[in-house]
Amino acid sequence: MKKTIGILGGMGPEATAHFLELIIKNTKASKDQEHIPVIVHNNPKIPARSDAILANGESPLPLLLEGVRTLWGAGADFIAMPCVTAHYYWNDIMAREKVSFLNLLDETLLYAVKVLPEEKRVGLIASTGTVKSRLFHDVFEKEGIEIITPDEKEQEQVMEAIFGEEGIKAGYTTGQARETIYRVAASLIQKGAKAVIAGCTEVPLVLKDDDIPVALIDPLQVLAEVSILKAGYELKEKTEGTE
Amino acid sequence: MKKTIGILGGMGPEATAHFLELIIKNTKASKDQEHIPVIVHNNPKIPARSDAILANGESPLPLLLEGVRTLWGAGADFIAMPCVTAHYYWNDIMAREKVSFLNLLDETLLYAVKVLPEEKRVGLIASTGTVKSRLFHDVFEKEGIEIITPDEKEQEQVMEAIFGEEGIKAGYTTGQARETIYRVAASLIQKGAKAVIAGCTEVPLVLKDDDIPVALIDPLQVLAEVSILKAGYELKEKTEGTE
Repeated sequence: MKKTIGILGGMGPEATAHFLELIIKNTKASKDQEHIPVIVHNNPKIPARSDAILANGESPLPLLLEGVRTLWGAGADFIAMPCVTAHYYWNDIMAREKVSFLNLLDETLLYAVKVLPEEKRVGLIASTGTVKSRLFHDVFEKEGIEIITPDEKEQEQVMEAIFGEEGIKAGYTTGQARETIYRVAASLIQKGAKAVIAGCTEVPLVLKDDDIPVALIDPLQVLAEVSILKAGYELKEKTEGTE
Repeated sequence: MKKTIGILGGMGPEATAHFLELIIKNTKASKDQEHIPVIVHNNPKIPARSDAILANGESPLPLLLEGVRTLWGAGADFIAMPCVTAHYYWNDIMAREKVSFLNLLDETLLYAVKVLPEEKRVGLIASTGTVKSRLFHDVFEKEGIEIITPDEKEQEQVMEAIFGEEGIKAGYTTGQARETIYRVAASLIQKGAKAVIAGCTEVPLVLKDDDIPVALIDPLQVLAEVSILKAGYELKEKTEGTE
């Protein structure tokens, strides 16, 4: 059974467009008609996830639920959400809407288990909301995988690189923002990380697998591949690593 | 009044993802919440447009209408369709559905009138469906703009570059496909074109404004900018030309 993918997006819009491209590029197809039907709800008005989790800001849950209902009404057979931090609300969504909804964290864990060596320690580059909410920690530690994170100062720099005036969300994917992400990745590897999770959907826009000596785990790439298979299509080619 | 854009896409999916990116990149915004809500109906199953127009193939109209109704039901305030050839069916759609739907051909004409010098002659690189159906000819000739097209052999090569096994739709945006498009653009300019229309949405994926000595008119870029303004948002910066 071939399925239609629903993308609950807009968090941010760049990551959503990138995720749609990942689905298209990784699908085995030689003409339009062999590609997967996808409905995208790109709603950038969804309140900021980190603010809601860390600073008691406006909850994104109502608009997330609205997006889920819109996608379902438009004919999506299952949903994928290309934003890590928003997965803080995944259980709340599932408690309220009877839909099929991939969990990016669970899928990333399954992938990490496959690529990690004996020493099960991964570095995490993510928004402070994701780090402090321990989204990855809780899922990974159950499987005996230790998560190591940047120190406080590095974490501030990561946030600046993602959300700053000249950050990735503002469209700057070269220069200072990129350098910061590289430096923090190197620091995590020095602390013993055997793989690095690009734990915010903006990170893989500037950090690629070839840039670091350990595996880069890109949850967006993982989610795209899982989505393609779940929709009943084949992957374009056997991919090594995450790019 | 801020509006939600509906994208009737999938023709092809790469052009749809590219168009979503053009909207995001050209919107003046410094954080997610300042971006435009967009609903994308990426349906690659819509029958091939050129086949339907030239070879009496299956009509894409039923699935186009279904896509329009899906976007409208999901909350789109107006629709944009990032596929030139499919505009052959624009009048048929408007006769059946009471929706607000930008016409890429009309918007491209308004743009061409602005950028052309006294000598109103433009070259057209497009699918054979678009060329033979005279979609651009009919709209542009009313305004006294002459359209010149590749000769028969060049036109076959353009089709191969777009639809061939190693063509742009199959994901090949460098190499032979790109060279063909460059060569045909140069040939049109030699015949007197004072601007070149990237008349199939795959063409601007390989041909850029800086690549040729006359203006490249990219209908996708034009449509993205018009869509942003119509949605009630500002353009990121004053753009020169079409890139």
